[in-house]
Amino acid sequence: MTPLQAIPEGIRCLADYEPHAREKLAPAAWDYFMAAAGDGLSARANRAAWDALQLWPRVLRPLAGLSTEIELLGRRWPTPLLAAPMALQQLAHSDAELALGLAAAVQGAGLVLSMQSSLPMEVVARAVVSESGRGPLWYQLYLLESRQATLERVRRAEAAGFEALVLTVDASVRAPHPAVQAVPADPGPAPASLPDLLARAPTWDDVAWLQGETKLPLLLKGVLNPLDARDAARLGLAGLVVSNHGGRTLDGLPPTAVALPRIADAVGDALPLLVDGGIHRGTDVLKALALGARAVLVGRPLLHALATAGAAGAAHALRLLRDELTIALAQCGLRSPAEAGRELLGHAPAAGIL
Amino acid sequence: MTPLQAIPEGIRCLADYEPHAREKLAPAAWDYFMAAAGDGLSARANRAAWDALQLWPRVLRPLAGLSTEIELLGRRWPTPLLAAPMALQQLAHSDAELALGLAAAVQGAGLVLSMQSSLPMEVVARAVVSESGRGPLWYQLYLLESRQATLERVRRAEAAGFEALVLTVDASVRAPHPAVQAVPADPGPAPASLPDLLARAPTWDDVAWLQGETKLPLLLKGVLNPLDARDAARLGLAGLVVSNHGGRTLDGLPPTAVALPRIADAVGDALPLLVDGGIHRGTDVLKALALGARAVLVGRPLLHALATAGAAGAAHALRLLRDELTIALAQCGLRSPAEAGRELLGHAPAAGIL
Amino acid sequence: MTPLQAIPEGIRCLADYEPHAREKLAPAAWDYFMAAAGDGLSARANRAAWDALQLWPRVLRPLAGLSTEIELLGRRWPTPLLAAPMALQQLAHSDAELALGLAAAVQGAGLVLSMQSSLPMEVVARAVVSESGRGPLWYQLYLLESRQATLERVRRAEAAGFEALVLTVDASVRAPHPAVQAVPADPGPAPASLPDLLARAPTWDDVAWLQGETKLPLLLKGVLNPLDARDAARLGLAGLVVSNHGGRTLDGLPPTAVALPRIADAVGDALPLLVDGGIHRGTDVLKALALGARAVLVGRPLLHALATAGAAGAAHALRLLRDELTIALAQCGLRSPAEAGRELLGHAPAAGIL
Amino acid sequence: MTPLQAIPEGIRCLADYEPHAREKLAPAAWDYFMAAAGDGLSARANRAAWDALQLWPRVLRPLAGLSTEIELLGRRWPTPLLAAPMALQQLAHSDAELALGLAAAVQGAGLVLSMQSSLPMEVVARAVVSESGRGPLWYQLYLLESRQATLERVRRAEAAGFEALVLTVDASVRAPHPAVQAVPADPGPAPASLPDLLARAPTWDDVAWLQGETKLPLLLKGVLNPLDARDAARLGLAGLVVSNHGGRTLDGLPPTAVALPRIADAVGDALPLLVDGGIHRGTDVLKALALGARAVLVGRPLLHALATAGAAGAAHALRLLRDELTIALAQCGLRSPAEAGRELLGHAPAAGIL
Repeated sequence: MTPLQAIPEGIRCLADYEPHAREKLAPAAWDYFMAAAGDGLSARANRAAWDALQLWPRVLRPLAGLSTEIELLGRRWPTPLLAAPMALQQLAHSDAELALGLAAAVQGAGLVLSMQSSLPMEVVARAVVSESGRGPLWYQLYLLESRQATLERVRRAEAAGFEALVLTVDASVRAPHPAVQAVPADPGPAPASLPDLLARAPTWDDVAWLQGETKLPLLLKGVLNPLDARDAARLGLAGLVVSNHGGRTLDGLPPTAVALPRIADAVGDALPLLVDGGIHRGTDVLKALALGARAVLVGRPLLHALATAGAAGAAHALRLLRDELTIALAQCGLRSPAEAGRELLGHAPAAGIL
Repeated sequence: MTPLQAIPEGIRCLADYEPHAREKLAPAAWDYFMAAAGDGLSARANRAAWDALQLWPRVLRPLAGLSTEIELLGRRWPTPLLAAPMALQQLAHSDAELALGLAAAVQGAGLVLSMQSSLPMEVVARAVVSESGRGPLWYQLYLLESRQATLERVRRAEAAGFEALVLTVDASVRAPHPAVQAVPADPGPAPASLPDLLARAPTWDDVAWLQGETKLPLLLKGVLNPLDARDAARLGLAGLVVSNHGGRTLDGLPPTAVALPRIADAVGDALPLLVDGGIHRGTDVLKALALGARAVLVGRPLLHALATAGAAGAAHALRLLRDELTIALAQCGLRSPAEAGRELLGHAPAAGIL
Repeated sequence: MTPLQAIPEGIRCLADYEPHAREKLAPAAWDYFMAAAGDGLSARANRAAWDALQLWPRVLRPLAGLSTEIELLGRRWPTPLLAAPMALQQLAHSDAELALGLAAAVQGAGLVLSMQSSLPMEVVARAVVSESGRGPLWYQLYLLESRQATLERVRRAEAAGFEALVLTVDASVRAPHPAVQAVPADPGPAPASLPDLLARAPTWDDVAWLQGETKLPLLLKGVLNPLDARDAARLGLAGLVVSNHGGRTLDGLPPTAVALPRIADAVGDALPLLVDGGIHRGTDVLKALALGARAVLVGRPLLHALATAGAAGAAHALRLLRDELTIALAQCGLRSPAEAGRELLGHAPAAGIL
Repeated sequence: MTPLQAIPEGIRCLADYEPHAREKLAPAAWDYFMAAAGDGLSARANRAAWDALQLWPRVLRPLAGLSTEIELLGRRWPTPLLAAPMALQQLAHSDAELALGLAAAVQGAGLVLSMQSSLPMEVVARAVVSESGRGPLWYQLYLLESRQATLERVRRAEAAGFEALVLTVDASVRAPHPAVQAVPADPGPAPASLPDLLARAPTWDDVAWLQGETKLPLLLKGVLNPLDARDAARLGLAGLVVSNHGGRTLDGLPPTAVALPRIADAVGDALPLLVDGGIHRGTDVLKALALGARAVLVGRPLLHALATAGAAGAAHALRLLRDELTIALAQCGLRSPAEAGRELLGHAPAAGIL
């Protein structure tokens, strides 16, 4: 790790890191991290949907003992925050996933390590797992061309101490980005001809197979449709990440703040829900909790902080977010994330699936 | 045909052709192709309405064998894409309708040749009809001043190998554009005094007459009102193109993405529906299919590609669109256009006619 | 009258006159004519509300004999267009109300002469009344400080040949604009202390009194609330002009396109409705007719044309509007203004009063 | 007090003072007064929500005797206007709260003095209380660290002649603004470590205690949730200020124009409601009255006037607002604030709590 870097002056919130990152990053890396599918409708809609929700606070309630702690997959964690899986963080900073992982750990946030990590998963896990007060340590994966290759990854993740697997299911057809090819990275699914790709696209059968092969809890990432969420609940999966991949895979998808409550209505308490997409404020986190999320994943804003000031930047960004969440809880009269319910948003969004 | 031209660098989607076309085209031609009635409300609303729809994908479904093929008027075609009828393509490129027709054919897209084609219909038809893997070859017409003149056109179209007639019914009163008069073109309806024009405006009787005079399937283009769609279904027409003429004939018309589902609700499966207006993305095509269209017509974006790089440009644009559609189908868990239904859009738009 | 002036090149619609007028007019006159109350919300909302309505045309209907004629107060007129009452037109052009009146007459449009006309009402009436093919000739008035003074105006209007009186009722408290004071004008209500003004503000009793004093039909201008419209119908008034005074009297009023259908629902056919506010397109006129108006008043756009090119400009503007209306009727499959009903707008705006 | 200052030319409404204030104020003071939490969503939404409401006036009603007088806490006052509690007005003008208090008094408006006043409360009260024709004189407070310290303030306020206490309840956790620390001010709650702050955050018990300790009417400021309003009514509080603290405490709160009618529906006439947030027009005041407010608090716009021209500026701003309100009442056919009801807004906003 490089020595700790200085946080630029004037950073008051996560968004303040973005212009700094733009200056620091090579244009190709910037383009890669900020890429959005199509016309960027989904990426913008993600943010707009959080902004459109309104918090209806309660006043004068006792706040002593207020905490951001949550329960997730049978354990308590300090915050409902996780760093989202993002590929190739060496493009952002030479300390890459190690910096982000440690930053998350010291702030009580979790890490979902990308299968396309710049660093070997074992290196990251070893540094993170022993940090006290850390958040969850999960491993994100795609199904690879052969089940054998996938299993090999799973075994390594189990051995390295990862506590859950997060299978990304919303990118069945992905054109590798030029920047990805130029960087020595953990290989994602190899490019292939389109019909081949389609024939090998993962299905529910593959999920069931994977579930049978590991004792780690298995979550799916990239679910938007409540009918899929129901299928996942029936299959006994450990959790869902409601996500549109930050608007990177297909444009015109619903914002996650719209999909989340419909999925929550569809599956009730059958399995814990997480959500990502456009979350960059403590009030966004609180809105997500009120809509039924147990925790949230934060992506690009952490990359901006990482690119700007390495581990120190990422830790600072997570600290800002955690403080904003604490203040938002207090101002709304809530003592914990678990107390945030749909009534916090005033008129509940129209319920019912689809 | 001129030798194949180079595609400019950096073209990633159809919209990227527009600035190139603006540079290449004479201002009068640009104005003619981009013209919109009134304040351009309908033209802008067309695009906004596609963007407002959201796709609710299903994940983990088997995708082997995914294809963009459709069935239309009793035959199977490679894609649900057709080049819209656009007059005077010589204003865009010297290869004119021949270039667009061949580009469409090699990409499995159809061609609806404008009655105001720069080139004789026979020239275009001869080149297109023998291409293998092509899409439908249709002829667009207005009713001319005398039924005899109209019939003469119909007979030529039949003889040339066109497979259907598309009668435009949303331009009963049209002031010829200056650019049209300056170009040696297939004559549209001759200018006349306004009361004469009105007295001769085509009616349902004319449609019935035309239907009786030809064995070619007859479609109407320019229908927005579900009540008109019902009348067309009752008359046994072969199909409808839901269209507001790209916003060129009257301003303040509903966007076609709003009219389409209402028409689909009104006529059910009685006759196939097509749609145009603002479609420039694979996700737009998929949304149209989900709303009840069997296929879509693409207009100005193809002209931009044609103006920029002739047949190569138009073929490239159609290829981009087809690839975008393939990826959109896959990401939504669909294996064919026929599988796209209203549920793909989440909450179905309010049904019911008018 | 000055010799006819040239229409500037490139004028395709009424809005094209606005920049020319801005150049021609003294800043104080421009400010006066364009003035809006408060933050201009109502003035902008007027336009936005017409734009938000959509026309759902019918196709293939017989159009022979299409005409813009209407019936109003027992007579037939060539168009549903009237020039709105606007004060002090000498600020716009030296030919003032005479130019606008003649322009309207030659285009079959009506004139509502402002009580604050720059020219004596008799001069304008004499020139207009004898024009064949003209529209209605009405006189707008405020109730003056004494009933005697008001009656004197009414008698002059009767004698001069005005065919109806239009009592403005939405400006009970008006601060005279500086520009008004600087111009030798027909006096409006004299300035007075505010309590005096309020004590003398006209009431329904004054309306009843005025009704009893004249045989001319009496219309009210400035009604927005359906409950007021009902009261007017009960009192047997001859008509209503649904108006928010072009957004000049109070800000935050509903746009007239929103108030009109609610008033139409409240009074049915009890009395004819007219409307003004933001109408500058033939499609706006058609939308107003569809919402229940018998005719429309056009204000500022005609002043812009008058300022730009005097009588020729105003006549040209009205001709453009009439032609746009004719084409809009034809494209929607209608042969007369009377055929335009709520169904033309697709889903009818929510009915019911208030 | 400094000699009366000149009002700049061209001030027609409160918003016209803003650019002058920006020039006069030190950047840190400007930042402090204009500060908004988070991304400023609530601050902007406050204004947008007033603008979105529409007034449906009645015409031809008798207006003699029109007055802006209201009844509040058992007394009649000249206007429904109060200056909102704002800290540290010396940052805006050397005459500070004295200037604003006197300006309010001469215009018949009330003053809610901030606990963080630059001047001792006794100085302000002495100057204001003896003005004839003044509005209410209230004292805003936070609960301090010790009840004893709070009581000391209450006793001083009682002795100084304040007529009610306004307890701010929406800022349980506040980071002191740098500008606040740099100015010798009445101390607000001292900074403390976050868990301490939370443990000491005021609760309903504290409110009940305070109620028992003073004979002054006690109002709560910062209530948005109708359920809290019901609790306040049950506790017999004297009134509520519906407020989101001008968007300064937490972002993403509902605009007060949305919260107000829901609270009015929840508590009926049980206690009088006041409202602040984005009010800067007479029509805003009238809309607030129609939604159920008895009076309104105006904040930043008065600070802008104070900064620009001291007491004269603030008095002028209040005079403009009062005149705008008078005209709005008259144009809507109302003779007093008490006549303004929900029907004035046309379709009533959806009722029901939450």
